[in-house]
Amino acid sequence: MDNVDVVVVGAGLAGLSAARSLVANGRTVAVLEARDRVAGRTFGGALANGVPVELGGQWVGPTQDAVLELIDELGLETFRTYDDGDSLTVYDGAVVRYADDTFGLPMESAVEVGRLWEEITTLAETVLTSAPWETTDADYLDRRTLDEWLRTNTSDTLALRLFRVLVPALFSAETPELSLLHFLFYVKSGTSLESLVTTTGGAQESRVVGGTHRISERMAEDLGDRVRLRTVVRDIRADTDGVVVGFAGGEIHGKHVIVAVPQTLAGRIRYTPPLPAARDALTQQIPAGSVIKFHVAYPTPFWREEGLNGFVLSLDDEFNVTLDNSPADGSCGVIVGFLEGAHARRAAELSADERRDRIVGNLVTYFGARAAGPTEVIEQDWTAEEFTRGCYGGRLGAGVWTQYGRVLAAPVGRIHWAGAETSDVWNGYMDGAIRSGRRAAVEILAGED
Amino acid sequence: MDNVDVVVVGAGLAGLSAARSLVANGRTVAVLEARDRVAGRTFGGALANGVPVELGGQWVGPTQDAVLELIDELGLETFRTYDDGDSLTVYDGAVVRYADDTFGLPMESAVEVGRLWEEITTLAETVLTSAPWETTDADYLDRRTLDEWLRTNTSDTLALRLFRVLVPALFSAETPELSLLHFLFYVKSGTSLESLVTTTGGAQESRVVGGTHRISERMAEDLGDRVRLRTVVRDIRADTDGVVVGFAGGEIHGKHVIVAVPQTLAGRIRYTPPLPAARDALTQQIPAGSVIKFHVAYPTPFWREEGLNGFVLSLDDEFNVTLDNSPADGSCGVIVGFLEGAHARRAAELSADERRDRIVGNLVTYFGARAAGPTEVIEQDWTAEEFTRGCYGGRLGAGVWTQYGRVLAAPVGRIHWAGAETSDVWNGYMDGAIRSGRRAAVEILAGED
Repeated sequence: MDNVDVVVVGAGLAGLSAARSLVANGRTVAVLEARDRVAGRTFGGALANGVPVELGGQWVGPTQDAVLELIDELGLETFRTYDDGDSLTVYDGAVVRYADDTFGLPMESAVEVGRLWEEITTLAETVLTSAPWETTDADYLDRRTLDEWLRTNTSDTLALRLFRVLVPALFSAETPELSLLHFLFYVKSGTSLESLVTTTGGAQESRVVGGTHRISERMAEDLGDRVRLRTVVRDIRADTDGVVVGFAGGEIHGKHVIVAVPQTLAGRIRYTPPLPAARDALTQQIPAGSVIKFHVAYPTPFWREEGLNGFVLSLDDEFNVTLDNSPADGSCGVIVGFLEGAHARRAAELSADERRDRIVGNLVTYFGARAAGPTEVIEQDWTAEEFTRGCYGGRLGAGVWTQYGRVLAAPVGRIHWAGAETSDVWNGYMDGAIRSGRRAAVEILAGED
Repeated sequence: MDNVDVVVVGAGLAGLSAARSLVANGRTVAVLEARDRVAGRTFGGALANGVPVELGGQWVGPTQDAVLELIDELGLETFRTYDDGDSLTVYDGAVVRYADDTFGLPMESAVEVGRLWEEITTLAETVLTSAPWETTDADYLDRRTLDEWLRTNTSDTLALRLFRVLVPALFSAETPELSLLHFLFYVKSGTSLESLVTTTGGAQESRVVGGTHRISERMAEDLGDRVRLRTVVRDIRADTDGVVVGFAGGEIHGKHVIVAVPQTLAGRIRYTPPLPAARDALTQQIPAGSVIKFHVAYPTPFWREEGLNGFVLSLDDEFNVTLDNSPADGSCGVIVGFLEGAHARRAAELSADERRDRIVGNLVTYFGARAAGPTEVIEQDWTAEEFTRGCYGGRLGAGVWTQYGRVLAAPVGRIHWAGAETSDVWNGYMDGAIRSGRRAAVEILAGED
């Protein structure tokens, strides 16, 4: 049986960051990864012409210092997301161009969106991100779904529809599926709602040359044979002396274990002794979002010729959030877009050809007839991935933060928890994942016996 | 490797009922049970004086024909729950006796409770229990939590507090944690709200002599060595020809498998090929309730002397639902009561002695000083049970029925699903569990190849 200081379960950004911190501090580690690749919810793909595209998480932006510094440290480079020109909003059959902060809505609805936006900003400021359950009005905020708050705070149909598109764009979940407290926590953890939804100056500002999966790959290269692929962890036995992590055909001993997989997967490992009731109940209640990501490639980014930046929000259509994802040199055109939440759930019942026809049909609505002839469509359904089971991340519905939030990142003896959902800064993002891994490493280094 | 027609995972009422039906139709079965006992969420205990008490599900009542007929078929007997005398409601420091349908509330609040009750009854009638997602107003009803509906439909504080006690008494969960649609579905599946909360004439009408676990034990006796205890299933491999069910140290082959464990546990088994996305997402979103069940024993059922039936609802206290659970001959007194939902979650952080002191303190409030000296207190925390992980059952929060309800009981190839949560009649009850097992057996018998 192998022996290391720390066993890490999962070779995504959280697990690899934890392992990197521990190795830098002289500890021995083994990182056990179920897949035949590292990088978790980041995943490198490529068009037929060789242009790399990200099948998972792809953008980084200001205040995401952990990921930005790591990119630099690993010798990787970033480039700006294309963001020149007008955006489009589609509603009631109209395709509206805009370049201001109206989202292209009629003035009355734009003002109402602005008012709600301000209220969200004010409410989000009240949240204690390090302990959301201790927020002054935690019970009030957690008892309500985001959908209830929106419905009871506006009677403007277009404003409501806009938020019901923006929210799935952030969570791959619908507004009734998260508590108001969770939404506000998430907004504040990512600086502000504006920061979350903005390209230049926000969370979609930059991309990594070659793809974000290279961050994990470079860390894994440094870790060498400490990373073991195709190793599906199925049980963790822990006592006061250490842990034994079991997988098909073997087991490995450590002083500590860091479980760095999505909560819903962490709950599927068998723990001996069984986890405390609250911890188990928590993992029953952080379901992952539903998203199918599409890259639609064209010979050129033709929308740019018409002064469009490729950003679309449609209140009418299923394929309702798109951005320009062309390579930095503009050598071909790529639109990236998403089926999220209920749209993803319905689309999963269709064939790949039916999905392709629908999303291309939506793009024709947005960008005209030239959108009808893509050279290639690549789709990635994250809900179908056995070792992810949904993206962008786990969400907390009504009541969960106040009932169980305190156990989300709290170690259980020698078992530590990491993953983007356990971070109070950029929760759910690559940056949060890296921070969570480092935090778990610090727990061990600080308390080591 | 063993070979049977059908492998059943879980030897609770659902799994054993499925196996019983299959054997009666000439099929070979193996029932794999993780625990060292059968009966799942029913569990036999006993007081020091030998009087049997049920540590899990315990009552049966009219219209629960499946369980009532099975009890009879197995040669078991029932007796009436003690229900003579007045009930008590506690609020704002007052302990109020009543014998009518006012719940002991002041007239204004009692009328308001009656009005809400009628509205719930009317709404519940609209639900299509066989397919709740096809209910006429499904989207409206599923977008709202029960808590939102209650808050927006009454401004009577006592009425609201009463429902916030009644609902955890049914679900071991709080009103924000279930959708209005799920609540209405559940009510209709159990006939009516009145039926669910009533002793004589309702779901708490009768008990089984010796305890409800005897239903499972008698079925297991008939099945003999087809039932294998201490067998923790960890993976199911299925193809077009059959299934292979794996556990530590072995595996067994079948033409079909029936997974008859709570949804949240069904999701922890590894399936090859991986389950469809919707099925996996569903099991991420049916968390079990939180309940700690107490039996408090006294030399005599002294409350009867004062004309009380032992039924208490407290709007003030944590131990807020109790009933008379004395043996049929009244040879000693037993109060059964529950810490449910948020109360159970908080109480789980305390020591057993602290919990005991608190609940006995509450009983002194309800029944006077004689309640201070129990001869014995037995507690059973269902959230701590590794192979149950919560009772009374799984609940569906806002959005889940409409997004995923259609896959709740739908077979995935040769994998069939049973358990009380998959029944459209008496969902969540012993009766529903039995019906679900029989339904899964019929699926196999009807479609067998």
